[in-house]
Amino acid sequence: MIEPIQDTELRGAAAFQHLHWLAGGRIDSVRLTSACLAAIERDAGLNAWLALDPTALEQAAASDERRRNGHAIGRLDGLPVAIKDNLDVAGLPTTAGLPGRRGRLANVDSAAVARLRAAGAVILGKTNLDEGSLGTFGANPHFGAVRNPLRPDYTAGGSSAGSAAAVAAGHCSFALGSDTLGSVRIPASHCGIYGLRPTHGQISTRGMVSAARRLDTVGILARAVEDLAIVINVLNAHDPSDPRSRRRRVPLAPPDWEPGRLTSGLIVDLASFGVEAEVQALFKQTIEALGSHLGQRILVDFPARDLGRTRRSALLVMEAELAVELAGDLADEAHPVSPRLRRMLEFARGRSAPDYVVADRVLDAAVLEARRLFEGVDVLVLPSVSHSAYPLAEGERATDADLSGLASLGGCPAISVPMGRLANGLPVGLQLVGRPGADLRLLELAAICATTLDAAPGFPIAA
Amino acid sequence: MIEPIQDTELRGAAAFQHLHWLAGGRIDSVRLTSACLAAIERDAGLNAWLALDPTALEQAAASDERRRNGHAIGRLDGLPVAIKDNLDVAGLPTTAGLPGRRGRLANVDSAAVARLRAAGAVILGKTNLDEGSLGTFGANPHFGAVRNPLRPDYTAGGSSAGSAAAVAAGHCSFALGSDTLGSVRIPASHCGIYGLRPTHGQISTRGMVSAARRLDTVGILARAVEDLAIVINVLNAHDPSDPRSRRRRVPLAPPDWEPGRLTSGLIVDLASFGVEAEVQALFKQTIEALGSHLGQRILVDFPARDLGRTRRSALLVMEAELAVELAGDLADEAHPVSPRLRRMLEFARGRSAPDYVVADRVLDAAVLEARRLFEGVDVLVLPSVSHSAYPLAEGERATDADLSGLASLGGCPAISVPMGRLANGLPVGLQLVGRPGADLRLLELAAICATTLDAAPGFPIAA
Repeated sequence: MIEPIQDTELRGAAAFQHLHWLAGGRIDSVRLTSACLAAIERDAGLNAWLALDPTALEQAAASDERRRNGHAIGRLDGLPVAIKDNLDVAGLPTTAGLPGRRGRLANVDSAAVARLRAAGAVILGKTNLDEGSLGTFGANPHFGAVRNPLRPDYTAGGSSAGSAAAVAAGHCSFALGSDTLGSVRIPASHCGIYGLRPTHGQISTRGMVSAARRLDTVGILARAVEDLAIVINVLNAHDPSDPRSRRRRVPLAPPDWEPGRLTSGLIVDLASFGVEAEVQALFKQTIEALGSHLGQRILVDFPARDLGRTRRSALLVMEAELAVELAGDLADEAHPVSPRLRRMLEFARGRSAPDYVVADRVLDAAVLEARRLFEGVDVLVLPSVSHSAYPLAEGERATDADLSGLASLGGCPAISVPMGRLANGLPVGLQLVGRPGADLRLLELAAICATTLDAAPGFPIAA
Repeated sequence: MIEPIQDTELRGAAAFQHLHWLAGGRIDSVRLTSACLAAIERDAGLNAWLALDPTALEQAAASDERRRNGHAIGRLDGLPVAIKDNLDVAGLPTTAGLPGRRGRLANVDSAAVARLRAAGAVILGKTNLDEGSLGTFGANPHFGAVRNPLRPDYTAGGSSAGSAAAVAAGHCSFALGSDTLGSVRIPASHCGIYGLRPTHGQISTRGMVSAARRLDTVGILARAVEDLAIVINVLNAHDPSDPRSRRRRVPLAPPDWEPGRLTSGLIVDLASFGVEAEVQALFKQTIEALGSHLGQRILVDFPARDLGRTRRSALLVMEAELAVELAGDLADEAHPVSPRLRRMLEFARGRSAPDYVVADRVLDAAVLEARRLFEGVDVLVLPSVSHSAYPLAEGERATDADLSGLASLGGCPAISVPMGRLANGLPVGLQLVGRPGADLRLLELAAICATTLDAAPGFPIAA
């Protein structure tokens, strides 16, 4: 006799496991979706969600009906998913973390959500995030702070804070986030889950509240590395309505890869990037544990001082773009944005058009620098964040995105894989960065690392 | 007995004819180059050149030596070429039409020049242009006006004025120009020659003084449409050092094309774009003459008012980029830039970073609009300019780039083909615009149009 699947098993499982159970008839989507909604309700204190989709159970029932008729419509049929609240879902508001947008409902799904829906996914609702997606901390001044499911007084990271917390707490097996300078990888690192920033342009950003067009990506958060590959294959499509959509597709199967011939780049001086000593030690230990899986290792000199200039340029580009994207919010006196956001956008308004061009050219140079780097290495290996999650009471650290920004500035794909815990019991991610278009190759390497490290922190899934 | 080739024949011939004679041993490169240099000297009054390369005859002798040894190095071996003076040629200054740059010699060839040189071309020197490449008139305030070889008191167009005049006057069979909003096609139209703006990113712009990175292209001017195909095949290569270089190549052979299945788009209301009545009549007559070569014709509604907003946005993007690119020139008190240029760059300095973002987003929208257009048509057919060349004494017209800007804003390739003369005896070009990457398909259609129209105006090649 086959054992029935418990709700705690459902919550702890990965998407591929859910799909297997759904396909085998051991669960149906209504049960899975109900379990998700119950978990969300019980975990309301995490503050991970801003809105639930009232049609979630209807979507699930429709999926079950399709499966009963033998006509599952896609790879994700019946699988519940969380959507970061800067991506449009038809019928729900898209707040982007701003106070004045709760009443305005999106008419049309964003491109990424439309592809999930077409593959049969059940849209559960929208997750909490930093105001305007501009942050790494997840403490929204209007909707409250997202709490880290591993330690509720600690940051979950940001800006895709709610998506990461929802996945880590088992509200759903995967979620969409967005990653401009690290907004998927930072919360993945802090919450001990997997996060993928795809190659820039690989997943359409149509219907996303933009932070900086040349850096914005839609990313994926999941409890298992295999799920990232499943979901990117659903989302990976050229979109003629997105001016920055790439035409060249990530291949559906990983390219041939000979581990012995891989060249991994390790940054010479992590301390100069402000990586905490304990994270450096964990990283060193991780690299040793990975042994020959990383192939030949070479040291890469990536001057931190150049990165500082590039980061400031990226920030100006973001602030100027947000000053346009959020112009209406800035003018909405009934729902004032936070003083911090106002200050940043007004700073951008005080810079000139040529200042923007100078910053944009620095980002061009960073793209070329990344290309040069990847002439010599296949993958750059470094921590995702310089530190673990920290108390919400300490306030946001300016250095959160220092290590994740690298990949963003080069347009490169990057994955955060849990690499273990620090003495405080909290996880830190291992970051793998590849050349543009190498997403599946990176995922293959990430799967090898995940198997070797087996460092998923054991989630606090209550019975 | 084979007739010897006269110098006038040399000057009137196309590049493919020169290459044929060179390959067959009927001329050598030293003779051809000498004839070019003699023509340049005699036509000094056209003011087409800013600098001659003192090594031109040495380059030619080296090519002859290679051919004698049976080792021609490339497709263009021994062929003289003119380079617009905003593209670096090692050992020569790159003025970009600015007063303070005559003493600074470029160390390295621009990417396009390096490819010409690697294919064996003989670099004759650098051609005159509008100040900072920002203009459509070719009357440089520091180096004097380029004169139209067909009528010396008239503009040759701009900003690739000297390159167009040099080709039209038979100083060389082809030249490099640059085309941001029409700077190759406008002078090609005014001088009665062929001009190609390639797909954006198709030819590397490394080593070019930039006017606006997202619009800049290196273009080709020639006396024969076949020559454009020869030269783009030499220049067409991905350049990892140019962040905007396209990876997808124009195919080396034109794609299969069934003329009967072509769909041509004709703009409904050319008058609303300010096209002069006589040009409209010539265009109508040309379309009739081309008959079934244009396949099925459909009318395209392209609102001129939207174009106005887009054009203003493009201008701000150019001005802001030039304010950065030419910051040193603006500060050089010993060699002041013109009051006109100063005014434009200072205008950009007075605009904010968010203003730039708004303009850049309008250009994103124009790219999408062009994509939508080319879902329904294979080629857009319109005049290159709304009027023929006009007297230098009249001063620059603000409307010169109205018809050429369309293709630039969409990132599309476009070709200007002489379509005939107006009552004043001056030529106007027929413009063919294709979807990105369709360069060779367009060239194939242009060749058919050229054969059918046979409208090259008969150049004033003196004996």
